[in-house]
Amino acid sequence: MKSKLIISLFSFILLISFTACDVNVKVKNKEDKKEYLASWNDSPSKQNIINFVEEVTNESSPNFIKIEDRIATFDNDGNLWAEQPYYFQLRFAMDMIQMMAPEHPEWKDDESFQAAINKDIEAVLHSGDEGITKILMTSHTGNTAEEFQASVIEWVNSAKHPKTGKLYKEMVYQPMLELLDYLRDHDFKLFIVSGGGIDFMRAFADEVYNIPKDQIIGSTIETDFVITENGPQILRLPELNFNNDKKGKPIAINRHIGRIPVFASGNSDGDLQMMEYTDSGDGERFVLYLHHTDAEREWAYDRDSHIGRLDKGLDESTANGWTVIDMKKDWKVIYPFELSNK
Amino acid sequence: MKSKLIISLFSFILLISFTACDVNVKVKNKEDKKEYLASWNDSPSKQNIINFVEEVTNESSPNFIKIEDRIATFDNDGNLWAEQPYYFQLRFAMDMIQMMAPEHPEWKDDESFQAAINKDIEAVLHSGDEGITKILMTSHTGNTAEEFQASVIEWVNSAKHPKTGKLYKEMVYQPMLELLDYLRDHDFKLFIVSGGGIDFMRAFADEVYNIPKDQIIGSTIETDFVITENGPQILRLPELNFNNDKKGKPIAINRHIGRIPVFASGNSDGDLQMMEYTDSGDGERFVLYLHHTDAEREWAYDRDSHIGRLDKGLDESTANGWTVIDMKKDWKVIYPFELSNK
Repeated sequence: MKSKLIISLFSFILLISFTACDVNVKVKNKEDKKEYLASWNDSPSKQNIINFVEEVTNESSPNFIKIEDRIATFDNDGNLWAEQPYYFQLRFAMDMIQMMAPEHPEWKDDESFQAAINKDIEAVLHSGDEGITKILMTSHTGNTAEEFQASVIEWVNSAKHPKTGKLYKEMVYQPMLELLDYLRDHDFKLFIVSGGGIDFMRAFADEVYNIPKDQIIGSTIETDFVITENGPQILRLPELNFNNDKKGKPIAINRHIGRIPVFASGNSDGDLQMMEYTDSGDGERFVLYLHHTDAEREWAYDRDSHIGRLDKGLDESTANGWTVIDMKKDWKVIYPFELSNK
Repeated sequence: MKSKLIISLFSFILLISFTACDVNVKVKNKEDKKEYLASWNDSPSKQNIINFVEEVTNESSPNFIKIEDRIATFDNDGNLWAEQPYYFQLRFAMDMIQMMAPEHPEWKDDESFQAAINKDIEAVLHSGDEGITKILMTSHTGNTAEEFQASVIEWVNSAKHPKTGKLYKEMVYQPMLELLDYLRDHDFKLFIVSGGGIDFMRAFADEVYNIPKDQIIGSTIETDFVITENGPQILRLPELNFNNDKKGKPIAINRHIGRIPVFASGNSDGDLQMMEYTDSGDGERFVLYLHHTDAEREWAYDRDSHIGRLDKGLDESTANGWTVIDMKKDWKVIYPFELSNK
């Protein structure tokens, strides 16, 4: 009886010690088995991405890339979230103008402000660079950095897209979120490099993409630092500081990151110079273009589009052997909310 | 006998299970016991730093700061490494001019270039803003980003300080390296925010300070992105883009980091606006000034110095209760090489 009891205790302790020590093993196995890129069909695009990541993170490979060099850059509009029927940030600007209008009766006679208030995108575009700049600067400047952040956060948590009825921040691409996770889990440092406003993106991108604010690069306006009666403030001035598009992208990457990326992802000709810059570095590189081919689930547009034109980028992808995602064929779902509907 | 054997086995298994599971515990204890700030005397400065870090990293404290908000910014010249008898980067510029001179016989009649070649700092300073700008731009631009990086790396691995005979990169402050470690181990994200050139610092700062290139912010020149016969290149143009000094520091912090730091460290009036900005945020903040008081082991200078003047910063430290390091009293050693000499 006594030895039976001891044996039971013995087994019990074995069980406890096994259970207690098994935690790490389980976590490791879970990681090994984690299904990355689950919303991607088994296409050449997916396979190319996996082949690259497995190759450059394999220490015994001649193409191994050290962790500090694993810089990956992503365009935002039309690449991480949608950009149709026109850039979401332009919609934010038009909504702001509408909200500010009651305090500006003098805008009654201004064509571009009226176009913004009426959400008449054709008329806004028709007002030309001057009109669009006026709408953007009036809606984005003349306040403090804190005030501007607060206004974007409020908008992004309430404004809804006219076609899907979803919040704009819900119109991010599920397969791209999974790509960010996959790269992050393999020690890539992720940066957004977008023509969009840096402070506009920072108001939601850390929450939505899990990318820290200091890893978000965008177009900037001039600012000033002043001591006000409310203490030190960053004031937003109505003047462009830097246009982070086309060759602005490699210039900003050099200035902000200081390394040539090894992985770049974009969807338009505005990303082409970032792609060329990325491809120019030594060793293995990965260049990824997203081709909007899904008129039913999203939008289909490329060479002739006014928003997110992809023309030269397609030709260069063919010429250089870059990977092009065919949205319609390669992605099981587009948006995260499709998953919860299943 | 049998039950004795069972009890032995029982003990053995207990021992094994304890040993196997003890790894994590040991690591944790080792961390707990790690001696931080070992080169700091037990002064109020050291205690203030420790009190702050322990307070804001304690989850049950009302002053707890979330990890994503733990942004710490450090000036470089005179704060992480020495800056006397004049900024090391100016010495680099003069050395470059001397190296380039044989290919520029026309410099024979140029007073500022001759001053640089002769390492005559008085004459260089006497040549005024125009002369100094010419020396800086000629030595820092007209090449590609890669070529410039290579030239700085070569210099920083060979050029020696006239007083100590040590490499410039060895003249970093051991107690500040320990402060960087201490904050890093407590999940602070560290940034250098310096008036020095961003690309100059990036050539050595990741090695010397263990701070990634994208977390180094400095003054910038204009650049261009061009496709050359050697492929895509970033070209360095002889025009200032941004002077990261005084109120340029908070402006650059807002632009590059997007968050107000919770910890700022500097040594001159050029850091004052960064200090005011840091102090302006909500919740617990730490502002740290380094006062050069050690004429024997380093240099003693403050209110009247042309390099690294600390005048208003001292007054504001008193007025605001900021911590001021007294280098002579607070630091056991200045440079890392003193440790290996012991």
